[in-house]
Amino acid sequence: MNAYPLLDSIEKPDDIKRYSLSELEELARELRNLIIDTVSQNGGHLAPSLGTVELTLALYRVFCFPQDKLIWDVGHQAYSHKILTGRRARFHTLRQKGGITGFPNRSESEYDAFGVGHASTSISAALGMAISRDLCGRTNEVIAVIGDGALTGGEAFEALNQAGDLGKKIIVILNDNEMSIDRNVGGMSEYLSRIRMAPQYNRAKKDVGSLLMSIPHIGDKAFRTARIVKDSVRSALIPGGIFEELGFHYIGPVDGHNIALMQDIFCRAKEMDGPILIHIHTKKGKGYLPAEKMPGKFHGIGCFDRKTGVCEKKAGAPTYTAVFSDALIRLAANHTNITAITAAMPTGTGLKAFGERYPDRFFDVGIAEEHAVTLAAGMAADGCHPVVALYSTFAQRAYDQILHDVCLQNLPVTFCLDRAGLVGADGPTHHGAFDLSYLRHMPNMTIFVPKDGAELCDMLSESVSMNSPSAIRYPRGAGTGVPLHNEFVPLSVGKAELIRSKENDSIAILAVGPMVGQAEKAARLLDMEGIPSSLVNMRFVKPLDYDMIRQMAEKRKLLVTIEENALAGGFGSAVSEYLVDSGLAVHTDLLRLGLPDRFIEQGTPQELRKLCGLQPEDIAESIKERLKSWQNRD
Amino acid sequence: MNAYPLLDSIEKPDDIKRYSLSELEELARELRNLIIDTVSQNGGHLAPSLGTVELTLALYRVFCFPQDKLIWDVGHQAYSHKILTGRRARFHTLRQKGGITGFPNRSESEYDAFGVGHASTSISAALGMAISRDLCGRTNEVIAVIGDGALTGGEAFEALNQAGDLGKKIIVILNDNEMSIDRNVGGMSEYLSRIRMAPQYNRAKKDVGSLLMSIPHIGDKAFRTARIVKDSVRSALIPGGIFEELGFHYIGPVDGHNIALMQDIFCRAKEMDGPILIHIHTKKGKGYLPAEKMPGKFHGIGCFDRKTGVCEKKAGAPTYTAVFSDALIRLAANHTNITAITAAMPTGTGLKAFGERYPDRFFDVGIAEEHAVTLAAGMAADGCHPVVALYSTFAQRAYDQILHDVCLQNLPVTFCLDRAGLVGADGPTHHGAFDLSYLRHMPNMTIFVPKDGAELCDMLSESVSMNSPSAIRYPRGAGTGVPLHNEFVPLSVGKAELIRSKENDSIAILAVGPMVGQAEKAARLLDMEGIPSSLVNMRFVKPLDYDMIRQMAEKRKLLVTIEENALAGGFGSAVSEYLVDSGLAVHTDLLRLGLPDRFIEQGTPQELRKLCGLQPEDIAESIKERLKSWQNRD
Repeated sequence: MNAYPLLDSIEKPDDIKRYSLSELEELARELRNLIIDTVSQNGGHLAPSLGTVELTLALYRVFCFPQDKLIWDVGHQAYSHKILTGRRARFHTLRQKGGITGFPNRSESEYDAFGVGHASTSISAALGMAISRDLCGRTNEVIAVIGDGALTGGEAFEALNQAGDLGKKIIVILNDNEMSIDRNVGGMSEYLSRIRMAPQYNRAKKDVGSLLMSIPHIGDKAFRTARIVKDSVRSALIPGGIFEELGFHYIGPVDGHNIALMQDIFCRAKEMDGPILIHIHTKKGKGYLPAEKMPGKFHGIGCFDRKTGVCEKKAGAPTYTAVFSDALIRLAANHTNITAITAAMPTGTGLKAFGERYPDRFFDVGIAEEHAVTLAAGMAADGCHPVVALYSTFAQRAYDQILHDVCLQNLPVTFCLDRAGLVGADGPTHHGAFDLSYLRHMPNMTIFVPKDGAELCDMLSESVSMNSPSAIRYPRGAGTGVPLHNEFVPLSVGKAELIRSKENDSIAILAVGPMVGQAEKAARLLDMEGIPSSLVNMRFVKPLDYDMIRQMAEKRKLLVTIEENALAGGFGSAVSEYLVDSGLAVHTDLLRLGLPDRFIEQGTPQELRKLCGLQPEDIAESIKERLKSWQNRD
Repeated sequence: MNAYPLLDSIEKPDDIKRYSLSELEELARELRNLIIDTVSQNGGHLAPSLGTVELTLALYRVFCFPQDKLIWDVGHQAYSHKILTGRRARFHTLRQKGGITGFPNRSESEYDAFGVGHASTSISAALGMAISRDLCGRTNEVIAVIGDGALTGGEAFEALNQAGDLGKKIIVILNDNEMSIDRNVGGMSEYLSRIRMAPQYNRAKKDVGSLLMSIPHIGDKAFRTARIVKDSVRSALIPGGIFEELGFHYIGPVDGHNIALMQDIFCRAKEMDGPILIHIHTKKGKGYLPAEKMPGKFHGIGCFDRKTGVCEKKAGAPTYTAVFSDALIRLAANHTNITAITAAMPTGTGLKAFGERYPDRFFDVGIAEEHAVTLAAGMAADGCHPVVALYSTFAQRAYDQILHDVCLQNLPVTFCLDRAGLVGADGPTHHGAFDLSYLRHMPNMTIFVPKDGAELCDMLSESVSMNSPSAIRYPRGAGTGVPLHNEFVPLSVGKAELIRSKENDSIAILAVGPMVGQAEKAARLLDMEGIPSSLVNMRFVKPLDYDMIRQMAEKRKLLVTIEENALAGGFGSAVSEYLVDSGLAVHTDLLRLGLPDRFIEQGTPQELRKLCGLQPEDIAESIKERLKSWQNRD
């Protein structure tokens, strides 16, 4: 029996325009089924995509894609869109190497108008396409779908600010589910909540107006009470006032699970001119009870049992995130000036536990990495030592703030960059492939790279005692399972650790982070072939341990650097700079292993390391090839 | 006769608390005089600082700095603040090497609570300090002064969003002068203008409320007219509604040149709790007629005649900016898909003329580099070729958008990075010291570095024909004055230009940009000492011309790279990577000249190049030293 009779009868997305409303509701059920089934097996962004099933159907009922342009902000909510646009048959390959990607991707489908992954870009891109359309004299619609979480990102505001003024026709659909990955934060979120709660605009009466006028504008003792009344009244009187003030025509709030209603409103929006914001209200995880109950857990999730909603427990060592989380809580007991900042990732970064233990010292700023970093700089300038925990790829958003606000003022801020290196199934938008390259040229910055969880703890302890900026980068997933120290062990900043040294070896491998483990295995493979080698855990990319490199270089003819970071400008690049600057390069050859100069696709971390030549056998092979090339040369 | 009797009687800023109002007005006149005098001789940010004289005095009347914390956004309006806080005597050294810096600077004064230079950071930093204060149980005030221009930057919104929700006491003073550097843009700017124009809040009557209710919410044929009425009425009814909705208590608009009124309002704000936004209205350039008339021209200005307001004309070659401006207009005639984007810098980037010639294809997005770049990506994804002109230092704000939105999707966007390298008197916040390092590791990116204006034209022509991302970086100020070609000359992407080659030379200098000119002079100095050398204009930092480097390396024992960019990760770093990767480093030594791993201070470009060893005689000296070190080695 075919579980997806309606879905399988769709040849092209426009087919759904022929369906009856009750067929659409059945189609929504099939979409949810397929999404839950696939994600339970492959992992993925379940709750966001379950929340947008009806929205997607309503959009495809009214608009003509791909002539009309549809831009999903972040793109983690677009599985229905993918399934309806020719990717039904291959949907089971979701997030697998060579399979359907987890985010809209221009190279995958002409229906994916704009590639996404990082938040808050959709209105900017939509406005760009609206400008392009008008310059070419076309008449297509351009639609951005943005969540209330992504709306906390400043770039979204920058785009609203210009779009409201420019007057070009775009439709922004604000998909308000009261959530970022975890619960949404900020004044805007409170504001949206007031709109949703307020009596309908068209029921508001003159007496509301009078009430509003009677509330004093400058505060007095009754200010706080009056304020709550005033805020509610104002929101009732002028729903969407913020958007209207910026120049948008606001429509809403609208039930985002009512296909017929949305269809009606989208048709009316098509007839209108200028920038329009349609505020829909949806439930994250809709239609799958475990996800409705725990939308944060089911935001992005690994494999799980569809019947129970229970995740596959991965036996194994604690994750780097968990180790960081525990260590920071321990350190905060003695270092009372430690504060912790996350950009909408309390769970993902492991700061949630810190927030429960030290609620006054924990700050979730929304999807706002720029603000997160300058906020930290402000705290640090006034005596705190903030720990800013971000994913490596999202810290890219705050490059200038790290450089201009923190490093230039040499302020004591610790950046904990989680998900550094290849993250796996989330693919190129999410790999932390560049942090060593973009941090290394920042003056005053210290860059720690722990080889395992124990070192992460000691480095964190060291960093919060420093009076200057530092970054600690560590990967996604489980650590090596080494026992953690009861006490934090002091580290010398800029000093590497010699892991092994073989008699008469002519090769020294310099590795950072988890690549130390890979290098150890590679060294053992080389041992078996009679090629002895030394191994150094460099620990610091900045400052580099020049003494150690010199010592290794002077006695050996080949140095090898290994990093899970772009080769351009990264760790091996720093070593190459030192070798040529010091004149050592004349005596010693250097083999640099790391990520090539292209974006790396999705796949398991193992598959991707293989692809980049970073598995132990690849490393050993590369070293042997280099040795061989000398024989040919000599 | 002492021209500044009141100013000179001030020993500490609190002294002004004793002055009468009429004395304060006299003090304001003295401050303006001193500022105009100094800037007419040293150059500087005149119009912004003239607009905040009364504001500064009112702040120092009411608050107790440095216990209270004062954060100036961007910081170009803080000259009065500097003069009043112990820097009166040294103010004549403004913006000179070793002198008073042009922006607040923590290492210069304890009254400079937070270092600034880039826009839109003040509310974030202020909130950080308010959090720190509350954690320590202190009671000081924290005040951020932000212009309406800086408010278009998304980071300011991110901070408002969190601050409004968190409820901590901070005072944000919105200094609304209707200007960014040029006229301000965007929906927020229109909104502030409606507030200023609207009848006073306390004059609004119930009939206003009724009028509001009677206007249909969903548009009809009379929509546009109705809207104007509705917008004005709403702003009259609830001034500052946007800020109130975000959780701020709004006070304003207030005349920002009325010291007594501001003093009164600041006193009341001190008594209140929670986040407060005080909206003041000022005139940029106030008190100096030429600056009032042309606030854009007098925003940041070189030396000028105080009597006439006429700038010193620098005889000499056209600036790179002017050459870029003309070339883009010429190219746009044939390339009808070219659009141009600036982030609040139409004059500074030279795009103003383009905007006048092609108003439909020109976009000023406000101080919003992130949005500027994603907007460009949206246009490029739909058939345009956008040219985004930014200062190198401000492009840092859009690092992630360049990488994630443009490079990852391999979209045809040209980034024109003006003010690359050492900019001079604006100092460390404004040097374009890092662009080669932060762009070089981005896959798909092509990096052009023109050695003069003619090459800039040809590179721009090449870049707008490419179907992938590219960046062209060029310095502040005058070019070399080479004649420009009538027609654009095609360039081979990734191919360097051999400038000179001497018989039996053992040195090859590889230079980029204006360093080619410096290198030529250095080579001539070496010639005179009997040290022959070759010289290559590399033209591209990415892709590097490996063939040329190999050819140079194979026959010579020393390569020298010269760049006005950080040595870490920059052009010389790329050459070092290639030399070690290819094995050439074993035969050929490399000397890398460029910016050291620290922030470079203010000074004239010549002084700063000297400081960094980039003047011709320094270059020659460094080369000779390297040669000498070999003699010692051999």
